[in-house]
Amino acid sequence: MQADLLIRRVHLAGVEGGAGSYGECRDAALSIRDGRIDWLGADSAVPAGLAARREIDGHGGWLTPGLIDCHTHLVYAGNRAREFDLRLNGASYADIARAGGGIRSTVRDTRAADDNSLYLSARKRLAALIGEGTTTVEIKSGYGLDLDTERRMLHVAHRLAAEGVTVRTTFLGAHAVPPEYADRADDYIDHLVEVVLPALDDEGLIDAVDAFCEQVGFTPAQVSRLFTAARERGIACKLHAEQLSDQGGAALAAGFGALSADHLEWLSADGIAAMRRAGTIAVLLPGAFHFLRETRLPPVAALRDAGVPMALATDCNPGTSPLTSLLTTMNFGCTLFRLTPAEALAGVTRHAAAALGLADRGRLAIGLRADLALWEIGHPAELSYHLGYNPLAQRIFNGIPDHVPSV
Amino acid sequence: MQADLLIRRVHLAGVEGGAGSYGECRDAALSIRDGRIDWLGADSAVPAGLAARREIDGHGGWLTPGLIDCHTHLVYAGNRAREFDLRLNGASYADIARAGGGIRSTVRDTRAADDNSLYLSARKRLAALIGEGTTTVEIKSGYGLDLDTERRMLHVAHRLAAEGVTVRTTFLGAHAVPPEYADRADDYIDHLVEVVLPALDDEGLIDAVDAFCEQVGFTPAQVSRLFTAARERGIACKLHAEQLSDQGGAALAAGFGALSADHLEWLSADGIAAMRRAGTIAVLLPGAFHFLRETRLPPVAALRDAGVPMALATDCNPGTSPLTSLLTTMNFGCTLFRLTPAEALAGVTRHAAAALGLADRGRLAIGLRADLALWEIGHPAELSYHLGYNPLAQRIFNGIPDHVPSV
Ligand SMILES: [Zn+2]
Ligand SMILES: [Zn+2]
Repeated sequence: MQADLLIRRVHLAGVEGGAGSYGECRDAALSIRDGRIDWLGADSAVPAGLAARREIDGHGGWLTPGLIDCHTHLVYAGNRAREFDLRLNGASYADIARAGGGIRSTVRDTRAADDNSLYLSARKRLAALIGEGTTTVEIKSGYGLDLDTERRMLHVAHRLAAEGVTVRTTFLGAHAVPPEYADRADDYIDHLVEVVLPALDDEGLIDAVDAFCEQVGFTPAQVSRLFTAARERGIACKLHAEQLSDQGGAALAAGFGALSADHLEWLSADGIAAMRRAGTIAVLLPGAFHFLRETRLPPVAALRDAGVPMALATDCNPGTSPLTSLLTTMNFGCTLFRLTPAEALAGVTRHAAAALGLADRGRLAIGLRADLALWEIGHPAELSYHLGYNPLAQRIFNGIPDHVPSV
Repeated sequence: MQADLLIRRVHLAGVEGGAGSYGECRDAALSIRDGRIDWLGADSAVPAGLAARREIDGHGGWLTPGLIDCHTHLVYAGNRAREFDLRLNGASYADIARAGGGIRSTVRDTRAADDNSLYLSARKRLAALIGEGTTTVEIKSGYGLDLDTERRMLHVAHRLAAEGVTVRTTFLGAHAVPPEYADRADDYIDHLVEVVLPALDDEGLIDAVDAFCEQVGFTPAQVSRLFTAARERGIACKLHAEQLSDQGGAALAAGFGALSADHLEWLSADGIAAMRRAGTIAVLLPGAFHFLRETRLPPVAALRDAGVPMALATDCNPGTSPLTSLLTTMNFGCTLFRLTPAEALAGVTRHAAAALGLADRGRLAIGLRADLALWEIGHPAELSYHLGYNPLAQRIFNGIPDHVPSV
C-alpha cells in the first residue's frame, strides 16, 4: 500500500462517524494518496504494508478538515477605514453618504482599479485566511454592478486559486442598485437577468447567484425574478436574508432550493421551517454583527432544535465586516451567538462545505479531498477560545503540505 | 552625521507635536543611532551629511511607536478552553467551580508547572504580540499566590525579555485568595505585606504592585494595606478597579498616586475626578468585556472630557480574556467602547507607556527609544479597522529591525 503522505501521532476532529460532538478519533493517523484521504484510523493500526513517501509527526496536535470560508466579498479596491474613523468621530451614516462614502465608494474604487491591483489587494486578505488553515473560499462579485467590472471581479477571484485554495464564485450583481439605475431597481434586475447573468454564466465564471434582500436592497419579488433566471440555467442560489429586518427572504430562498440563507438575525419560525424542508444551510456572519453593533441575535437555539445546519463565515467586506480570520469568526460565533465550539468547528468545515454545495470536503473520510489543517492545540475547543492567536502548525491543500515536512 | 539605520519614504504617526489627532508627519524619514531616535523630519529634509549604515525604504507606509501591552497575565500554565466549552454547553459558573474550574484551576496548573513549560507556553503568546509590532509588555504574577510560584512567574516574565521586548513586571499576589487562606483574606494580605512583597522586591523582581479590588476579590481596606506597604518601599501601584461593581477602587488607587486603574466599567464621576487629579491612567480592557459579554461600558466620553488619558491592553489571561492581539484590542476599543482610531493608537503607545511609568517610549521624538513598527497601510485608522489582518511590515526593537533590511 503506497501513500504520498502519512500523518502520525495526531488526534482527528471532524471525522465522519467520529466520537462525540467533534467527531473525534484520538491517537490517530491519516494517509493521503493522489490528493485524497486514503486511510485513517488509530495510529497503532496503521497498516503494516503502508509505505509513505513523506511523513509528518503531529506531535499530539489535532488534525481537522481545512477551513472553509463560505461567504466573502474578498475582491474589492480601496478600504473604508476613513469612514470607520469618521463615524467614530461622530459622523452619521447620512454624513458619510453625502461625502460619497458607503458601498458607492467601494463600487467607484473597484470600477477604477485595474485587474492587477484588485488581485494584489485581495491576495493579502486571502493570505490571512490561508495562514489560518483555510483551503476553500467563496468569493462574491457585487462591487462592479456593471457587466465589465463584475466579470473582472470574477476573473480575479478565479485567479486567486493560484495561491493554493479552491475558489468558488458567486454572482452578486444584485448587491446594490448602481448609480446608472438609480430609482430603477426593476430595470436593473431586468438587465441582470437578460444581459449580465447569461453572459457570466456562459463564460463559466459563476458557481451560484446571490442577492441582498432587504429594505435597503432588493425586494423579494425582485430576488424571485433573479432566482427564477438562475434556476432556468441550473445555477444554485444563496441569499443575504433577514439581516436588518424580516423580509421573508430565507423562505423565498428555500423555495428555490437555495444552498444557503445568510445573516438571519431576523429569521422567523416560518423561515426556519422552510429552510429545514429545503435543506438550506444557515450561514451566520458574526463579524458583521460585531462591526455594526447589532443586538438582535440570530435564532441559534431554534435553528439547532430544527436541525438546520449552521455555517460560519467572515463576510469579509470593506463596509460592514473587514474581517479576514475564520478563527476570530469562530470565537465570535461562540461568544456572541452562543454556538458551542464544536458547532463553530463544524460551521467552518462540514456545514460551510454544504453551503457551497461541495460534498467532497469539510469532513475527514476516506476518498474525500485531503484539505487539512494541523493545529498545535490540546483540545479542539481551543480553536474558538483563543483570540488573536494562530495555532496552525501545517496546512495541507489537495494533499500537499505548505511546509515541507522533515523526512 | 552617522546613523545606524535610516528609514525613508514613510509617514509618521505618534510624533510628539505632530499634526492632527494622530500626531502625523507625512512624507518623512527617521534615523536611529545607539538604539535611540536620532533625527526625524521631512524626507526631503534628511541632512545632506547623514550617513546611515543601513536603510529601510518604507514604500509610503506608516511608522508608529512600537506597540505596548500595559496589562497582561501572560505567564500561566494550562488553558481554560474546556471551561469555555462547558459554559457554551450550558454549564453554570457554579458547575464549573464545583468541577474544579475557574482561577483555581489555573493556580493549580501554574504551581504544578516547571519553569521551562511556563516559559515555553508564555513565549508562544508573546510571539503573537511581537508579530504585531509589540515592543514592551507588562506581565503580572498572580497565579502562584505563594512566594515560590509568584517568584517563579516573575523570573519567567523577566526571561521573556530575551525574545526581544522590554518586560515590566507587576506583583499581583492579591489576585485571589489562595486555598491555604480560604476565608482568611486579611491573613493573606498580612502574609503578602510581611513576607511575599518584601522578598520579591528585595530580589528586584517587581516594577509595580497590583490587586483585584472587587466583591469577589479584595476590599478597598485590604488593597489599601497592600498599597501602603508598596508606597513605603517606593513601588508604584496599579489596580484592577470597577470591573464588575463600583468599589471606589479607582479613587483609592489615585490616592496612592497609582500609575493606572484598569477595567473601569463601573467607574464613577468621583473616580474620574480623583484619577485626573493624580494623573492616573485609565487602562481599558475590551477583551474581557467581550469574553464576559458585559453590557456596561466604561465612561469613555467622561474620561475624554476630563482629560484622563486612556490606554488599551489585552488583559491576556486564560479565564476572561484569552486574547493575544493588540490590533484586535484596538478594534474592540473602537467598536465596543467607541474610542476613535487615533485614541486607540495612543492607547497602545503613548498612554500605555505612561501606564507603566515609562517616559522614554510610546512617542516619536528625538532621544526616545527606537522601538518602532512599520505598517503596510494607507492610513493609521486601518490599524483599528481591520480585524484578523496583520499589516506589520517591520518591527524595530531598540534600534534593531527584526528582518534584516536589504542594503
Ligand atoms: Zn455578505
Ligand atoms: Zn487583569
